[in-house]
Amino acid sequence: MGCPFNVPQDPGKRKFFGTLGLIAAAVPLATIAPWAKILGEDTDIAPMTEGNSNIEPFVSAHQNGIARSMQTNTSFATFDLTTTRREDVVKLLRVWTDAAQRLTNGQQVQSIDQATSSDDYGDSGKSSKSNESSDSDDTLGLSPSRLTITFGFGPGLFLKDGIDRYGLAHQRPEALIDMPRFIGDKIVAGFDGGDLSVQACADDPQVTFHVIRELSRLAYGIAELRWAQNGFVPKFGPMETPRNLMGFKDGTINPSIKDPEAMAKFIWVGDEGPAWMSGGSYMVVRKIRMALEHWDRMKLSFQEQTVGRYKLSGAPLSGKNEKDPLDLDAKDADGNPLIPENSHVALGAPANNDGAQILRRGYSYDNNLSFTAERWPPWHQGMEFDAGLLFMCYQRDPRTGFVKIYERMSKFDMMNQFVTHIGSGLFACPPGVKQGEFIGQRLFS
Amino acid sequence: MGCPFNVPQDPGKRKFFGTLGLIAAAVPLATIAPWAKILGEDTDIAPMTEGNSNIEPFVSAHQNGIARSMQTNTSFATFDLTTTRREDVVKLLRVWTDAAQRLTNGQQVQSIDQATSSDDYGDSGKSSKSNESSDSDDTLGLSPSRLTITFGFGPGLFLKDGIDRYGLAHQRPEALIDMPRFIGDKIVAGFDGGDLSVQACADDPQVTFHVIRELSRLAYGIAELRWAQNGFVPKFGPMETPRNLMGFKDGTINPSIKDPEAMAKFIWVGDEGPAWMSGGSYMVVRKIRMALEHWDRMKLSFQEQTVGRYKLSGAPLSGKNEKDPLDLDAKDADGNPLIPENSHVALGAPANNDGAQILRRGYSYDNNLSFTAERWPPWHQGMEFDAGLLFMCYQRDPRTGFVKIYERMSKFDMMNQFVTHIGSGLFACPPGVKQGEFIGQRLFS
Repeated sequence: MGCPFNVPQDPGKRKFFGTLGLIAAAVPLATIAPWAKILGEDTDIAPMTEGNSNIEPFVSAHQNGIARSMQTNTSFATFDLTTTRREDVVKLLRVWTDAAQRLTNGQQVQSIDQATSSDDYGDSGKSSKSNESSDSDDTLGLSPSRLTITFGFGPGLFLKDGIDRYGLAHQRPEALIDMPRFIGDKIVAGFDGGDLSVQACADDPQVTFHVIRELSRLAYGIAELRWAQNGFVPKFGPMETPRNLMGFKDGTINPSIKDPEAMAKFIWVGDEGPAWMSGGSYMVVRKIRMALEHWDRMKLSFQEQTVGRYKLSGAPLSGKNEKDPLDLDAKDADGNPLIPENSHVALGAPANNDGAQILRRGYSYDNNLSFTAERWPPWHQGMEFDAGLLFMCYQRDPRTGFVKIYERMSKFDMMNQFVTHIGSGLFACPPGVKQGEFIGQRLFS
Repeated sequence: MGCPFNVPQDPGKRKFFGTLGLIAAAVPLATIAPWAKILGEDTDIAPMTEGNSNIEPFVSAHQNGIARSMQTNTSFATFDLTTTRREDVVKLLRVWTDAAQRLTNGQQVQSIDQATSSDDYGDSGKSSKSNESSDSDDTLGLSPSRLTITFGFGPGLFLKDGIDRYGLAHQRPEALIDMPRFIGDKIVAGFDGGDLSVQACADDPQVTFHVIRELSRLAYGIAELRWAQNGFVPKFGPMETPRNLMGFKDGTINPSIKDPEAMAKFIWVGDEGPAWMSGGSYMVVRKIRMALEHWDRMKLSFQEQTVGRYKLSGAPLSGKNEKDPLDLDAKDADGNPLIPENSHVALGAPANNDGAQILRRGYSYDNNLSFTAERWPPWHQGMEFDAGLLFMCYQRDPRTGFVKIYERMSKFDMMNQFVTHIGSGLFACPPGVKQGEFIGQRLFS
């Protein structure tokens, strides 16, 4: 064929420059889209009314995605800071805060000064601000969907490769430890850490993805995406605990988000310092792959012994109802504990961890299939589900929270036969912002 | 550490066999879960009432996931048949049909005879049927969520590597062609074809994933998962066209699923044969990665010229409202076409394709990030969004449908600068089943 585009090795590049000339000629100035004019005045396509129950205000004492009823979807991403300048970090947190306020309010992000303008793409140079696409627009007309956006600071913001890039090393909280390596950890290179984290949660996956997409654009030249994972929970009623992919209810023993005392004791940072973290919380994230094919081959009773709960009701094996307290001393007629000592709930129970409590806010993930060579009979080698749990939890101090609990769990939990931790992160989530503040402002002032 | 489980290379295997003995001792027979008893009689946890608007009956003249208002989520998977026996294929289609009826009805799948029983796992051998986990249970208590399940047969069912494995070669429809390689195709190895396809669509991602998970278990020993991709569209009203990740409404020019004449003419196979496909349809699937970072850097007007529609309204550049017909002859004062000839909608228009129409039913996908070396300025090398469109369309004949349309589009569409086709498949979707039939039964009788 004589077609000049018949270059399968790199059709994009060749066609790109080839067609731009055509376009420049073909676009009369009069074809500015009608809504570009609307947006030009910085009004919004879908301004939301006060009191819209689908809006979770970003301005709040605590960040708004922590002590919050779970939405059905999450998009989580971490970023590496590439800038060497402290003022860039401040600038980024300012524009992110502004964008987060707008996005949670159901608005588009504002027009932005991009490091790379459209002119770099062979444009005619006649661009007018109002004619630029300042938002990916894929959420136009959608509900705010109870969107929350939660920011976190990783250890690398304070010290990276031994270098105090932004003069913040002395502000690093003791609680923001380098995560220990646990027994059984198989953290995939590149799927840990990050200098900054963003978690968007909403009742629509397009709304959460949109957040990561817009915030990453706002970070051009300052920070780059490092790793990301989206997740979901099924639709469930307000009083229900959603089931994870193992088929069990997940999150039953959470402290109540409606209990300010429990939140103050276990979740929010108090006077222990540093001051900039007061009212904040520490987020642990673990990407946990599940061997679903194997789990599904197990007997129901074995699954229940592994978890320590009944599958249907979610009740502990020592009780009848989901919310019944664990009775770790209860024994059957033969003197065996009803809840096995190496079951998941026994090892995670506050009573076995000096009273430790964490706020679990995990999402299932489904990354389709990947090639897997099984470790057990029937020794299958082939495509298996690349799925599991994007475990996320919040706590006042990870040393007395997740690390405390998981230290023993990583060694003895029967569930470890079916799960592998392949991603990890720890982030200091500063308190919420007042109007006019930017996220983490007290750290920089 | 002296801990015997401190073997990070293979903790699962060692602990697995180590703990099973413990379990066998610790499980008294009385701890059968309460709902195992319920399920023992093959009653269902959540039997659905007749007329439940969240149920799309599987028994239907046409398969129920084609001419159907889109649900918000899909899980799509293809399978390779590994069996050499025709009766295994029939058996699989029978159990899949039975499972599909139950699942779309909001029920659990039935207890199954697995090729590999639990006893292979070192079990004590005392298993009773009622104590086995016959469903992954992660959808317990969830709504059927308008679940539809659509099955398809790929060319490999009829002839694979020149071998007619199941005596079906003479039944292969002429329309079930080997998909041509189009200009610009970058199909990733392993992400094309498949002997069988399953598409689950529902308003809950846990419900659709559950289908693939259960059907793949039912296929053990007969067929194996080949590739899979999940997808979503945002929540949208019944009269609205959802936006894809490019921010444009996608599917506007679909023939109306409420127009039986259009469906009969363009979507359903008629008398042209083979007889077993009468009332069926052909599904083309294309996994299309979008260069979202680049698309988002383009000016709004350039995006609109590329698509041929206004972004906000979805109206063609020759009109005012979304549903306005394309006026491909309309010109501006300078004599340039309002809808560029190499725009996406112009190339896809029936008027430019001998009247061809297809029923688009695509879903956005978000596979998080992957390392990407960009082909354009700013020549970024790093993590970019691994996201795009799981394009799916149905048609009476792909030769006069998708292939006809995409042949020119693959060469000239301006949008090709931003999209790459990385997965592909063509499947013959037989008609729906009557009560008691299995899917595709007429092919085997």
